[in-house]
Amino acid sequence: MIIVMQPDAGDAAIAAVEAKIRSYGLDVHISRGSERTLIGAVGDERKLDPAMFDPMPGVEMSMHVVKPYKLVAREWHKANTVVNAGGVPIGGPTVQVIAGPCSVETPAQMEAAAAGVAAAGARLMRGGAFKPRTSPYAFQGKGVDGLRLLKDAAAGQRLPVVTELMDVRMLDRFIEHGVDVIQIGTRNMQNFDLLKAVGQVTTPVILKRGMSATVSEWLMAAEYIAAGGNHNIIFCERGIRTFETAYRNVLDVTAIPVLKKETHLPVIVDPSHAGGKAWMVPALSLAAVAAGADGLLIEIHPSPKDAWCDADQALTPAEFKALMGQIKAVAAAVGRDT
Amino acid sequence: MIIVMQPDAGDAAIAAVEAKIRSYGLDVHISRGSERTLIGAVGDERKLDPAMFDPMPGVEMSMHVVKPYKLVAREWHKANTVVNAGGVPIGGPTVQVIAGPCSVETPAQMEAAAAGVAAAGARLMRGGAFKPRTSPYAFQGKGVDGLRLLKDAAAGQRLPVVTELMDVRMLDRFIEHGVDVIQIGTRNMQNFDLLKAVGQVTTPVILKRGMSATVSEWLMAAEYIAAGGNHNIIFCERGIRTFETAYRNVLDVTAIPVLKKETHLPVIVDPSHAGGKAWMVPALSLAAVAAGADGLLIEIHPSPKDAWCDADQALTPAEFKALMGQIKAVAAAVGRDT
Amino acid sequence: MIIVMQPDAGDAAIAAVEAKIRSYGLDVHISRGSERTLIGAVGDERKLDPAMFDPMPGVEMSMHVVKPYKLVAREWHKANTVVNAGGVPIGGPTVQVIAGPCSVETPAQMEAAAAGVAAAGARLMRGGAFKPRTSPYAFQGKGVDGLRLLKDAAAGQRLPVVTELMDVRMLDRFIEHGVDVIQIGTRNMQNFDLLKAVGQVTTPVILKRGMSATVSEWLMAAEYIAAGGNHNIIFCERGIRTFETAYRNVLDVTAIPVLKKETHLPVIVDPSHAGGKAWMVPALSLAAVAAGADGLLIEIHPSPKDAWCDADQALTPAEFKALMGQIKAVAAAVGRDT
Amino acid sequence: MIIVMQPDAGDAAIAAVEAKIRSYGLDVHISRGSERTLIGAVGDERKLDPAMFDPMPGVEMSMHVVKPYKLVAREWHKANTVVNAGGVPIGGPTVQVIAGPCSVETPAQMEAAAAGVAAAGARLMRGGAFKPRTSPYAFQGKGVDGLRLLKDAAAGQRLPVVTELMDVRMLDRFIEHGVDVIQIGTRNMQNFDLLKAVGQVTTPVILKRGMSATVSEWLMAAEYIAAGGNHNIIFCERGIRTFETAYRNVLDVTAIPVLKKETHLPVIVDPSHAGGKAWMVPALSLAAVAAGADGLLIEIHPSPKDAWCDADQALTPAEFKALMGQIKAVAAAVGRDT
Repeated sequence: MIIVMQPDAGDAAIAAVEAKIRSYGLDVHISRGSERTLIGAVGDERKLDPAMFDPMPGVEMSMHVVKPYKLVAREWHKANTVVNAGGVPIGGPTVQVIAGPCSVETPAQMEAAAAGVAAAGARLMRGGAFKPRTSPYAFQGKGVDGLRLLKDAAAGQRLPVVTELMDVRMLDRFIEHGVDVIQIGTRNMQNFDLLKAVGQVTTPVILKRGMSATVSEWLMAAEYIAAGGNHNIIFCERGIRTFETAYRNVLDVTAIPVLKKETHLPVIVDPSHAGGKAWMVPALSLAAVAAGADGLLIEIHPSPKDAWCDADQALTPAEFKALMGQIKAVAAAVGRDT
Repeated sequence: MIIVMQPDAGDAAIAAVEAKIRSYGLDVHISRGSERTLIGAVGDERKLDPAMFDPMPGVEMSMHVVKPYKLVAREWHKANTVVNAGGVPIGGPTVQVIAGPCSVETPAQMEAAAAGVAAAGARLMRGGAFKPRTSPYAFQGKGVDGLRLLKDAAAGQRLPVVTELMDVRMLDRFIEHGVDVIQIGTRNMQNFDLLKAVGQVTTPVILKRGMSATVSEWLMAAEYIAAGGNHNIIFCERGIRTFETAYRNVLDVTAIPVLKKETHLPVIVDPSHAGGKAWMVPALSLAAVAAGADGLLIEIHPSPKDAWCDADQALTPAEFKALMGQIKAVAAAVGRDT
Repeated sequence: MIIVMQPDAGDAAIAAVEAKIRSYGLDVHISRGSERTLIGAVGDERKLDPAMFDPMPGVEMSMHVVKPYKLVAREWHKANTVVNAGGVPIGGPTVQVIAGPCSVETPAQMEAAAAGVAAAGARLMRGGAFKPRTSPYAFQGKGVDGLRLLKDAAAGQRLPVVTELMDVRMLDRFIEHGVDVIQIGTRNMQNFDLLKAVGQVTTPVILKRGMSATVSEWLMAAEYIAAGGNHNIIFCERGIRTFETAYRNVLDVTAIPVLKKETHLPVIVDPSHAGGKAWMVPALSLAAVAAGADGLLIEIHPSPKDAWCDADQALTPAEFKALMGQIKAVAAAVGRDT
Repeated sequence: MIIVMQPDAGDAAIAAVEAKIRSYGLDVHISRGSERTLIGAVGDERKLDPAMFDPMPGVEMSMHVVKPYKLVAREWHKANTVVNAGGVPIGGPTVQVIAGPCSVETPAQMEAAAAGVAAAGARLMRGGAFKPRTSPYAFQGKGVDGLRLLKDAAAGQRLPVVTELMDVRMLDRFIEHGVDVIQIGTRNMQNFDLLKAVGQVTTPVILKRGMSATVSEWLMAAEYIAAGGNHNIIFCERGIRTFETAYRNVLDVTAIPVLKKETHLPVIVDPSHAGGKAWMVPALSLAAVAAGADGLLIEIHPSPKDAWCDADQALTPAEFKALMGQIKAVAAAVGRDT
C-alpha cells in the first residue's frame, strides 16, 4: 500500500500514518519528494484498506499495490486450470460450446433442443428452470419441474447440463437433481450469500459478469467462491452496460485476454445475451474464439419465434450447426480444436 | 405496443403479426406509411413483449407504449404515498433524515452514534449488521448480534431502525428483532427472490438503486415487492456507476424529479455512498433536498477514522449537526420542514 | 511518479528504470517490499509519463502522484478567481444566471427573449448563432447575422452576451461583434486548436464539459486555454452521458464541489441540456445552486413550442421568472445572493 | 414519426398535433387505443423532430420510425462500397492493414517503420504529424514537417499514407502534401465544421468513433461528410469509454456487424488505441477480423520503448510480422484474404 501525503502534511501527520501501518504488523518506508511525501507499507497489505488512511489528516490518497485476489490469481498459480464439467474439460485446448434454450418449456421442446445441441457437436446443454425477469408479471420459469425436464432431455443425448441458481434455498435441489454446472447470473454476481453457498459444494460454477462489474470486482466475486473451497469456477463474459442503445449490451472482448492474464481459471463467452439478437450471434461467437475464449454459451430453440423468453436471440438448430462449422475454422486458426 | 415493419415487408408478414396480436386477445390497428407500415396492438399490452415480434419475418422493431409498471405508478395512484417507518412518516411535507454508522461495531460505538443522531434532530437510525463487501477477506458484519446492538442503542433514543437484509434466510430474524425498515442494497436490487420475500411482509422497505440500474428497472424491482402485497416502499438513490474516476459514484439528482413524476412512493437519497468522501456529503445532501428528495440516509460515526468500514465517508456527530442546520435552511427554501 | 515493478523483476530491470528517470533530471527513491519493489521519481514529474515506463521490462504499472494541471489548480492559487464577464462578476458571492434561447431566430424573438431575461433579473443573455446539430439536415444557425441580432437585442436591455464558437476561423468575427463571453461546446471540449485559439484572446470563455469527459480531462482542456494566456475561464457542467435512457444526460452535481476544490476558477451549470426537458429545469437548477454552483445557464424562449431547436427544454419567460424566485431562496439558504 | 398522447389528452390536443404534422406537408393517421391515442405522421418524416411535438399539450413522447441517415445507409444502397485509398481497395474481400507509429519523429524512425510495415505485408502506412494530446505540455507533433517525413518514408516502400487532420485550416496543406487518406480523430467526430470541410474534397476519410458516440451519431457524422459530396468514408471503431478501469477503452466488436448492416461503407478497427497496451493488440486484432472488420489500423514502432507517444501500445516490427500471419489465418477462416 502506498499513502500519498498532501503537500503541506506535517511530521505529526506522517508519524500518525506510520503508527497506523505498524499497528497492523507491517513495515514502513518513507520517501520525501520535492512536492509530496510517499509512505509505503511493506508486508501483507491485504490487511490494509485505503479507507483506513484516506480520512487521516494530511493524507491525499492511498492505494493498494498488490492485487486483492489470491486464490483465483495467476500470479500464484501459473498453469491453466481445467474444470471438469460433468466429464467435459473446460479450459484446455478444446473450445467447448454449451447450447440450449433460454427456458425449459416442454418435454418436446427440450428433446428437440437436446437433439439440436448434439447434432451440431456441442458437448453441454443449457436451459433455464428459474428465470430472472425484469417484470414480476413475466414467466418466471418452470422451477424444479424444469430441472427434471432439462436433465431428462440432456440425458437422452448424454450431455451434462448447466442451469442458473437464483435462490440460495434451492441449492440442495440442484444437487439432488444432478445439475452438472451451476450458473450464477449477472444480477447475482455480488449476491455474496449465494456465492458463499456455492463455495461449499464441489459442483462447477459458471460465474457471469455483473452488467457493470469491473474485472477486479468479478475476480473478487470468484474469490468468494474459492475461499469457501470450490475452485471449479468458470468466468462468463456476457456483455456490459454502456451508453449505447443500438444493442442490448457491449460484448467486452478485451476482458478475455485480460482475464486470461490475471487468472488461471477458464473464461467463456455468452454471445446471445451480449448482442440480444440472433443475427449478431455468429459475429460475436467468432470474435470471442479469436480473442481466446475457452468456450461459448449459446441460446438455441427448436422454433425461436415461439420461445417463451428471449425469442429474438435464439438460433435455430440449423443456424447453430452452421455456426459450429465456422467456430471450428476460427478455433483452428488460433490453434485450438472444438 | 407498436410494431414497425421493414420497408419490404409483404402482406403475409403483416398478417402474421396481426394474427399473433389477436391470439392474445388484443385488437389491431394498421397504418400504412410511405416507407413503413406500423401495426398497433390495442388492449392490455402488458401481455405482449417486443421479443415476441422482433424475430418474426418482416419486423424491424417493436416497442411498448404503456409503462410496464402499475402498482407503483403515479398514473394509477395520483396522491403521494406516505410510508409509516416505525412511526416516522416518509413522503410527506417533512424531509426525514436517517443517520448512523456504516457497520455496527460495539455497544459504546452504537450508543455514541445514537446520541449523535438524536442530538442533531434526525428521526431514524441506520447501522449495518450484515455487510456486502467486495472482498471475502473484509469484515462481513456482526450478524444477528449486530441487529440486537443496533436495536438497543436506537431504543435508548427512541429511534426506529433501518438495516440491510442480504440473505433471504435471515428475514425471519429481522422481523423477530423488530427491524423497523428493511434496506435492500444496491447489489440486490434485482435479487428477485429477496424482493419476493420482502413483498410478503408489511415492514417498510428501502430499495436502493442498482449501481447501473435504469429508472425503469428500478421501478420494476419495486413492482416485484408491491406485487407480493407490501406497498411500503421507499426508493433510495445512491449514485450510479459511470466513466468518471474522480469520485466513487455520480449522484443522479435528475432521478429525483423523474421518480416523483413516475411513482407515488417516497424517494430518498444516500449522499454518503454517492460521493464516497465525507467532505462531499454536505453539498450532495443539500442538492438532493433542493431537487425534491423526501429524505436522506447519511453515515455518521463517533470517530470516523476508527470505523471498521467506509471510514472515509462518515461524518462526525458535530459535522452532522452542522449539516442538519443547512438541510433545514434549504428544505425551508423549497417549502418543506425537517 | 511511482513505478511498481513486477514480483519477479530483477536488478537489471530496476536499474534501467532508475537510469531512465535520472536521464530526465529527477532523483530516484527505491523501496523494496516483500512482494514488489516500488521506484519513486523525485523532482518535477510533469516531465514524465506512465507510457514511458509501462513498456519497459519488469514494470507492472506506473502512475503520476502530482496532478497534471498547474495554472488552473487551486493548489497553486488558493483564492477564488472572479471572472469579469462584460461587467458581471462570475465566481464571487453572487449566483449569476445567464438566460436566452437555444438559437437566434428573428429580431422579434430576440427582443422578447431579452425582455424576459431582464425582467426576471438575470444579468447575461445567451443565444446560439452557430449550432452544433447531430444532423447535417437540421437548422445550423443564422451565422454572423445571428451574432448581430443577439448583440442588438441584448444591448436593448444592457445585457452582456454569451454565444458558442465552433469554428476557429470565426474567432475574429466574434471579437469584432463584441461577443462578451465565448462558449466552447461539449463536442469541442477537446478541439485543441480551438482551445489554443481562444487562449490567445482575453474574452472570457465558458468551457462546457465533454459529454463523457472526466474532471481531470476537463481541467486539462482549461489548462490549454490558460497556457495560451487567457485565464478568464468558467467551467460549465451540462450533464454526462451514462447508461440511463429516461433522460438525455445525468447532471453531475458531484462535479461541482470537486471542481471547487481542484480549481480556483468559477463553475456554472446548464440545467437545460442536462435534463433535456423544461419540466426538469427547476429541480436541477436548485440542486446546482445548493451544491455550490457559481451560476446557471438556462434556456428560455418567448414561445417554446415554436422554437427552431430544443423546443422541449426551454422555459417561458413567466416560468423563468418564477424559477428565479426559487433560485434566490435556495441561494440565500446557502449564504449567497442572486 | 409516431406521437404517443397522454392518457387524458383531449380532442383539442390531438387536433393540434394533427395540424402541426399537416403544416409540414405530411399525412396523419390516428389510432385510438384503450389507454393511449397514437398519431402517425405519414410522409417524409425527416422534416419532423421529436422536439417539435414533445412540448405540446397532451403529448407523452414522440419518436422517429425511419432512420435519420440516408446517403450512408445500406437501406438505400445495398452493395458494399469499396473505397480507393491511394490505390488500395478498402471494403472488398481483402482485409487491409494500415500500420505505422503513433507520431512522426525522425527520418530514421520513419524509414525503419516503413520497412517494417512493408516487410509484414501491410499495404498502407500511418503516422501522426499533428497529435491531439490531453496535456498542452505534451509533444504536439512535428506539424507540416511531419507530413513530409511521413510521405517520404512511405514513398520509399510505395505505401499510401494515412494521417490525422485536427485543424480545418490545415486541410489545404494535407492536399498539397498528397495525403492519401485523412483521419478524423475520436475527439473531432462531432467537429462539424471539420466534417463539412472534408466533405468538400475527394480524399478518402477515416472517421473514428467518438469515445462515447452512439452508432447513430457516428452514422450522422459520416452523413455530414457525405452531404458535402465526399462519399469515400471509412468507419473506424477504436474502443468506447465505459466504467471499466482495467483497460483504456472497451473495443466494441458488436458495432462491426451492426455497422455492416446499417451502412454500405467499409468498417475498420484500431486495436491499439482500444486496449492501450501492446500485449492486447493480437487478441483484439483477431477478434475484429473474426467479427467482420474490413481492415485494421495498428501502431508499430522500430523501438516502442523510445517512442515519443503511446509507447506502451506499439508493436515491434517483428511482433507485427508475427501478428500478420495470425491475421491471415483468421481472415481465411472467415472467407477473406489479406
